[in-house]
Amino acid sequence: GLVPNCDEVNPFGGPMPKELYVTDPLEVQKLKAQCLSLPHLEITELDLQWIQTLAEGWATPLNGFMRENEYLQVLYFGQLQVSDCPVITNFSIPIVLAISNEDKERFHGNGSSIAFVYKSNIIGMLQNCEFFPHRKEERCCHIFGTNHINHPSIEMIMSSGDWLVGGDLKVFERIKWNDGLDRYRLMPKELHSELIKMKADCVFAFQLRNPIHNGHALLMTETRQQLLEKHGYHNPVLLLHPLGGWTKSDDVPLNVRIAQHEACLDEGVLDRDTTLLAIFPSPMLYAGPREVQWHARTRMLAGAQYYIVGRDPAGLPHPNGTGVDLYDPSHGAKVLSMAPGLSNLKIIPFRVAAYDKTINKMSFFDSERSSDFLFISGTKMRTLARECMEPPNGFMAEKAWKVLSNYYCQLNKSV
Amino acid sequence: GLVPNCDEVNPFGGPMPKELYVTDPLEVQKLKAQCLSLPHLEITELDLQWIQTLAEGWATPLNGFMRENEYLQVLYFGQLQVSDCPVITNFSIPIVLAISNEDKERFHGNGSSIAFVYKSNIIGMLQNCEFFPHRKEERCCHIFGTNHINHPSIEMIMSSGDWLVGGDLKVFERIKWNDGLDRYRLMPKELHSELIKMKADCVFAFQLRNPIHNGHALLMTETRQQLLEKHGYHNPVLLLHPLGGWTKSDDVPLNVRIAQHEACLDEGVLDRDTTLLAIFPSPMLYAGPREVQWHARTRMLAGAQYYIVGRDPAGLPHPNGTGVDLYDPSHGAKVLSMAPGLSNLKIIPFRVAAYDKTINKMSFFDSERSSDFLFISGTKMRTLARECMEPPNGFMAEKAWKVLSNYYCQLNKSV
Repeated sequence: GLVPNCDEVNPFGGPMPKELYVTDPLEVQKLKAQCLSLPHLEITELDLQWIQTLAEGWATPLNGFMRENEYLQVLYFGQLQVSDCPVITNFSIPIVLAISNEDKERFHGNGSSIAFVYKSNIIGMLQNCEFFPHRKEERCCHIFGTNHINHPSIEMIMSSGDWLVGGDLKVFERIKWNDGLDRYRLMPKELHSELIKMKADCVFAFQLRNPIHNGHALLMTETRQQLLEKHGYHNPVLLLHPLGGWTKSDDVPLNVRIAQHEACLDEGVLDRDTTLLAIFPSPMLYAGPREVQWHARTRMLAGAQYYIVGRDPAGLPHPNGTGVDLYDPSHGAKVLSMAPGLSNLKIIPFRVAAYDKTINKMSFFDSERSSDFLFISGTKMRTLARECMEPPNGFMAEKAWKVLSNYYCQLNKSV
Repeated sequence: GLVPNCDEVNPFGGPMPKELYVTDPLEVQKLKAQCLSLPHLEITELDLQWIQTLAEGWATPLNGFMRENEYLQVLYFGQLQVSDCPVITNFSIPIVLAISNEDKERFHGNGSSIAFVYKSNIIGMLQNCEFFPHRKEERCCHIFGTNHINHPSIEMIMSSGDWLVGGDLKVFERIKWNDGLDRYRLMPKELHSELIKMKADCVFAFQLRNPIHNGHALLMTETRQQLLEKHGYHNPVLLLHPLGGWTKSDDVPLNVRIAQHEACLDEGVLDRDTTLLAIFPSPMLYAGPREVQWHARTRMLAGAQYYIVGRDPAGLPHPNGTGVDLYDPSHGAKVLSMAPGLSNLKIIPFRVAAYDKTINKMSFFDSERSSDFLFISGTKMRTLARECMEPPNGFMAEKAWKVLSNYYCQLNKSV
């Protein structure tokens, strides 16, 4: 594809995505031929998710897996400045490729190239490679603020290879997963086209990895109302953007979530005409304040000008099992608001919604009459679904709950 | 003192230091009277070192111990942007005050003030306090890239209080230690005056916490030569700037180091006319790439335009006892070169010097004839001194070695 200038903007004012797919068929042919004589690296599903994330331009301005200079900037400054470009890019997480000592031995050192193989297909290559040590403890500490091995991402990092390899990524073909959901996996530029088709004059994004209850829906509807009334937009569009890559094993799987989101749209708790449902291909990290920046910045690339940030975004309980949150639940929104390179994105803080027993609906929590409210946590919700019980009427669109409870009842039977 | 504008520069082009000493005697009187009715906090020697560091302007633009907003910027971005000022300040380490739960209970919450007491004297106060949780694991991980309890700074952090308190610091009197070394403890503005008196047209700084051997001296002399010949300066002055605050127990104590440095000047291995020997009041952290930025940025405040960076600056062996360096020895210089807010400081990479057996002198290491060289590490040097042996002739100025070996021989006897 065309390489945008580093300060080029997309139709919605955010940065212009840089894709790493090779689009010229002759070039693809030539590179594939080269790959035959290169050392091959068998990549994992997780690697491929990152390759898709890189190739589609979500990690602009990266040209591939990070080199040490980029990696160190992320670790120490949460930002990226690439050569010959004055623009400061918010970049809070490493996108790196770990390889084993044995693989490093097989490869031809700095400056050489590697072919990537996934399920026996050569899907792309890494050119002008740079090898540097995978300092895992340091990486985990800086990114997660802990080094605890029970953190699901840290566990994976610790068991990965001792070297990192950065370089220029070329991907030969659009990455598809053939799971019936590829049509939701729109690249940033495709999202721009869709949003233009929908005549959006303002885009607000909601990142999620959980089912939507009516409290979420209330927040999104309310946000749209504010954008119409207070900010004077005529057609704000919601980018409903569930994360599609790896999640920890007790999160709800992607296909169930998409069906659940579709049910919410079917039942009208979210307005289909002003909502664009698409999948964000990145894996989760559970890196709290670091990760919420990644989630926000990628949505700027997709066209969002407004971003709804939750309580404890990308958080989880401390892996030490004490039951305390790993991250301070307020830090995500605070760090987002001070992050260099995100000043063009307007942050909408999550207003807490709870089940209002006086009207049998989800409403914004009012501390003046707190006893009227019932908090139904994610854990509580899953427990209800698992035990095939119903949540209070008005908590979630009926059809959407059905999707969820079917999944959990199924799960029960299979255990 | 006068509060400088946030973009004001000092006579040597660096940022203008903001002092937090109260200079008006009437104001001091008034504040001291206020302090009588405020809750008192007994501060430690380490706290007082930080208070001195803050009060003298080394931590400009801070107004006192960090508030949460400042602390989070440091943790996540290694930089500071304060309200109403577009200037990005490099700020890589937290300067925070930890207090216990009991102390927090005694104090009057956000917005209140505390009086600081050291050895029964009220030395200053913290106004408009802000209390926030001391998330120790998170702090250590982000700053040190490890959470290992045997790291000397982490050990202290872990045993400190569970709350942090930020606020506006007022210090009533110049902090003195009455150890015979106060005359070396020049504030940044006093250093400017000295440098102007010395007619410096260029200042290069050398941070150290170890004795000077002739390899260091060679590097400093060589640097000056280059500044004269290649950069066209007429009178480059060396700011020889040993760290004076807390160091780990096996480092050489400050008084011994100062005597050793003076001996180097006496013997002429460093030129007294073009060297300004002064003490930097900050404690050590042993935070590697994070700390080298602190060391460099503070020297910009003092007037330095050039900074000599060593191999593995502020590093130490991994506290896990494997004998491996905690930090990648190359990361310090790399991170320094990419650090936001330090682009005006020119970094001079340390050239490795070793003992050249063919000429019985320290020379820059030449890998073409590596067998001619002898590496004498800090550990080796201490072992020699401890066993009252002599290093090879030409390794260190004779009188300077005497200072060191006297100290270690003394230490032997006292054990």
